[in-house]
This record gives sequence, structure tokens and C-alpha cells, in this order.
Amino acid sequence: MADIKRIETGARMSRAVIHNGVAYLAGTTAAEKTPDIRAQTRDVLQRIDKRLAEIGTDKSRLLTAQIWVKDIKKDFAGMNEVWDAWVAPGHAPTRATAQCELAAPDILVEIIVTAAI
Amino acid sequence: MADIKRIETGARMSRAVIHNGVAYLAGTTAAEKTPDIRAQTRDVLQRIDKRLAEIGTDKSRLLTAQIWVKDIKKDFAGMNEVWDAWVAPGHAPTRATAQCELAAPDILVEIIVTAAI
Amino acid sequence: MADIKRIETGARMSRAVIHNGVAYLAGTTAAEKTPDIRAQTRDVLQRIDKRLAEIGTDKSRLLTAQIWVKDIKKDFAGMNEVWDAWVAPGHAPTRATAQCELAAPDILVEIIVTAAI
Repeated sequence: MADIKRIETGARMSRAVIHNGVAYLAGTTAAEKTPDIRAQTRDVLQRIDKRLAEIGTDKSRLLTAQIWVKDIKKDFAGMNEVWDAWVAPGHAPTRATAQCELAAPDILVEIIVTAAI
Repeated sequence: MADIKRIETGARMSRAVIHNGVAYLAGTTAAEKTPDIRAQTRDVLQRIDKRLAEIGTDKSRLLTAQIWVKDIKKDFAGMNEVWDAWVAPGHAPTRATAQCELAAPDILVEIIVTAAI
Repeated sequence: MADIKRIETGARMSRAVIHNGVAYLAGTTAAEKTPDIRAQTRDVLQRIDKRLAEIGTDKSRLLTAQIWVKDIKKDFAGMNEVWDAWVAPGHAPTRATAQCELAAPDILVEIIVTAAI
């Protein structure tokens, strides 16, 4: 139905789904799996920025985020440094962060965001 | 209030909650805890299909999904095989998958979906 | 824009974000990191009650919850005991629970809720 819009829909998932003015993005990982949490986090956030722009919104309209980190003891500070610098001042989403092993061993961080359109 | 509809509400959780045209399903695990990721994933997805039908929707209207797998290295491929065959072509939700130990040691996969009504 | 309301917005996150009649709360942990799952769960739920009241809603209007527990084998029963006693009878949200290491080693439980306003 026309009330659900799907972006880059494959057999496994869509990269974004929009319904009722809310955009759900797929869990985003870095394109380059460098062993550096700051580089991976920057890469993830750039990909999220690009996706949000494609669907007509931006990071100032984020509602909520989940962040999954492979090694939270080692990488929490580095991830936060990049995240905090990226967030649109005065427009931070709610957030929750946990340590999870992810789909491949070289993925250090995965971020799931929901935004208003 | 009448604007929130709850399905099979117990002391701990409801099996589904509907609000503003969006249905939130509880995390679903397999009824039969066989030590086979394909069997458990099929079981979970059948239970999700049944629940969606009860509330007047179906898998073609999924918005987003989280998949938690107990052993992602061992079971990611098997879970994906069953998942990919189940998704309604052209209607895949967004998705994120992580490895988590779940409520009992014999639970290999738990899936949380949100759907439009 | 006026269609998104943010509560206690910092550089990293907001404590709550309201959009389209839905309130997303940040992952909530206990203020006191006592090594007792019941005490930490009670503390988390009191903080959630307080936050919901601030934004004009309450636990009878919860839609969905995710619960992350550091040691699910050890603490699932204790967390559930406190959770079950807290839930508004007849108004339980959907729920999913996983074991995750959290942002600091003394955090035993983190709860993320979404509520209708």
C-alpha cells in the first residue's frame, strides 16, 4: 500500500522504511572495516547522514538511536567522541548503548536510528 | 484509553500493542526449542505470521525488525536462509541483527517486529 | 520544528523525545549501582515513572519495552519479580529481554521504553 514507502528493498531487508511520518533505518555498519572505532563510527554516521538526506530529512530530526558496540570497555569512549561531535546541537535523539557481537567479527559498531520525516 | 489496544495482556507483557496504526509485537521465540537454528527460525516466523493475522495485518506490512541470535558465527547463515525465504518480496522491513544470550540457554533466536496495521 | 519535543537535551542524547503522540525514552539505568538486581530494577523503574510523569503520561500507557540484563542466568528472575509487580495491571507493554554487557561493569540492567502520550 501507498502508506508505506520502502527504500532499496532487497530479499533480506529495506535500507529505510517510512510510515506515518516516521523513518526507520536499517542497522548501519561501516563500509570500511578498519580496526579503529573512531573511523568506523565516522563511516557509519556519514552513511546515516546520506540515507537521511535521500529520504528528505536530516540528523536534526532524529527521534531515537540504539548503538551496539563489539567491545564496550575498549571502544565506548572513542565511539562517544565521534557521536557527540556529530549530533546536531539541541536536537539529540534518545539513545541506548549495549555491547553485542555483530554479524561479522570485524564490525566494531552498528547504529540503528529512527527519524521524523 | 481506547487509543491503545493490547493483545493477550499478562502480568509481564502483552503479546502485541497497537497505537496510531502501528503494531508492536513482543519478542518472539520458538515454541519448540530444538537445537536447529532453521527449525527455531521457522517456528518464530510462523508465530509472527499468526500474530499479525490476528491483529489484521501481515508480513507485507512490516516496518522494522530486530533479530537476536545466540551464536551469530554458527547460526547467522541458517537464520538468514529461513528469513530471506519468508520475507514478502518487495516488502522487506528494515533489520538489525546482534548476538545476545537470551532468556533461556536453549533459545537460539528471538525476533522483534513492528508492523503497520 | 515544533512537531518534535525534546526533554533534557545534552550533547549526547535527550532523556525523552516526543513525536506524533509517541514518547521515546533513553535507555535508563539505576542511579545507585548496588550489586542487587532487585534494587537496580526498582531504581530504574522509579526513574521511568518520574520521567513519564514529567511528560504527561504514565506506565499504563507504555507501548513497548526492551530490557538488557548483564547476567540473565543469575538475574532474570529477580528483574522479573520487580518488573511484574510494577506493571499496571491490564496495561502491560510488549517486551523483549536480552543479555548484554552495558556501558559500565556495575550496570546490571538497562530498560528502554516507548509510551503513548
